[in-house]
Amino acid sequence: MRVLGIDPGTYKMGIGVVSSNGSSMTMDYLDILSPSRKYPLPKRLGLIYEELSRIVKDWSPGEVAIEQPFAGQNIKAAMAIGQAQAVAMVVASRNDIPVSSYAPRSVKQAVTDYGGSSKEQVQAMIRVLLELEATPSSDAADALAVAICHINSSDIGRLNIHE
Amino acid sequence: MRVLGIDPGTYKMGIGVVSSNGSSMTMDYLDILSPSRKYPLPKRLGLIYEELSRIVKDWSPGEVAIEQPFAGQNIKAAMAIGQAQAVAMVVASRNDIPVSSYAPRSVKQAVTDYGGSSKEQVQAMIRVLLELEATPSSDAADALAVAICHINSSDIGRLNIHE
Repeated sequence: MRVLGIDPGTYKMGIGVVSSNGSSMTMDYLDILSPSRKYPLPKRLGLIYEELSRIVKDWSPGEVAIEQPFAGQNIKAAMAIGQAQAVAMVVASRNDIPVSSYAPRSVKQAVTDYGGSSKEQVQAMIRVLLELEATPSSDAADALAVAICHINSSDIGRLNIHE
Repeated sequence: MRVLGIDPGTYKMGIGVVSSNGSSMTMDYLDILSPSRKYPLPKRLGLIYEELSRIVKDWSPGEVAIEQPFAGQNIKAAMAIGQAQAVAMVVASRNDIPVSSYAPRSVKQAVTDYGGSSKEQVQAMIRVLLELEATPSSDAADALAVAICHINSSDIGRLNIHE
């Protein structure tokens, strides 16, 4: 199976494509979509849409996994997360690809066996799991991690945010 | 000028197209996009995207005006508003149409001359301003109202949420 993992943000959207043959996993593609901060929000979202559509076309993932970041009580952050998620969901939906979402704790648990692990621990573990030559940035590691989480997971731990 | 007004929601998206020749305004089109609640969120957003794209193609609005609803301290509501806004913004951006956003108070002020007016007052005033034969529903009235707000407004009162 090939999974497109997404760490959603309107300034920085982490993108990781991971394939699994059942016994091992491979990183197929890694990107950080970061349209210029000078652009107004609609243009940034439009550019993210175009880039994501291109990536889906190039890599034909069978599933999309989105990290559902923790917004706390921050209304502005929640709105931005919603915006970034929506762009990813529209691209997935228009390409008939099912979408799953995971809480950060589930993603960390899946990758490091501990839901409270640090960013650095996630980054180091991603490097090991995918046999990368360098440690990925945090946004990149998060995108790869949610893809791995989806590959490893049963339905348990999947957030039911789509109903 | 022709303005596409949008009252964003992931369950109900109010759509109103209003034209102005400088002295009078006409309602060109009115719709409520409400994909079945049985569908998961990505599919609902994808359907809203398709419908909005069709409406933009049919009516060629020169500008898009989006109401920025008040989320209060409700994180879930803020995320849903962000999702619905993002779909509208991506459609506008991909069609090279500039987007403006307005707070509910500014919309009410523009339509009824009073920022604290009731839903019913907005609905009644929309009927008068656009010479409609019936009173529009609240979602429909809000979409028409934000289009009228944009037509009537200077830059004052426009929310600067796109930076």
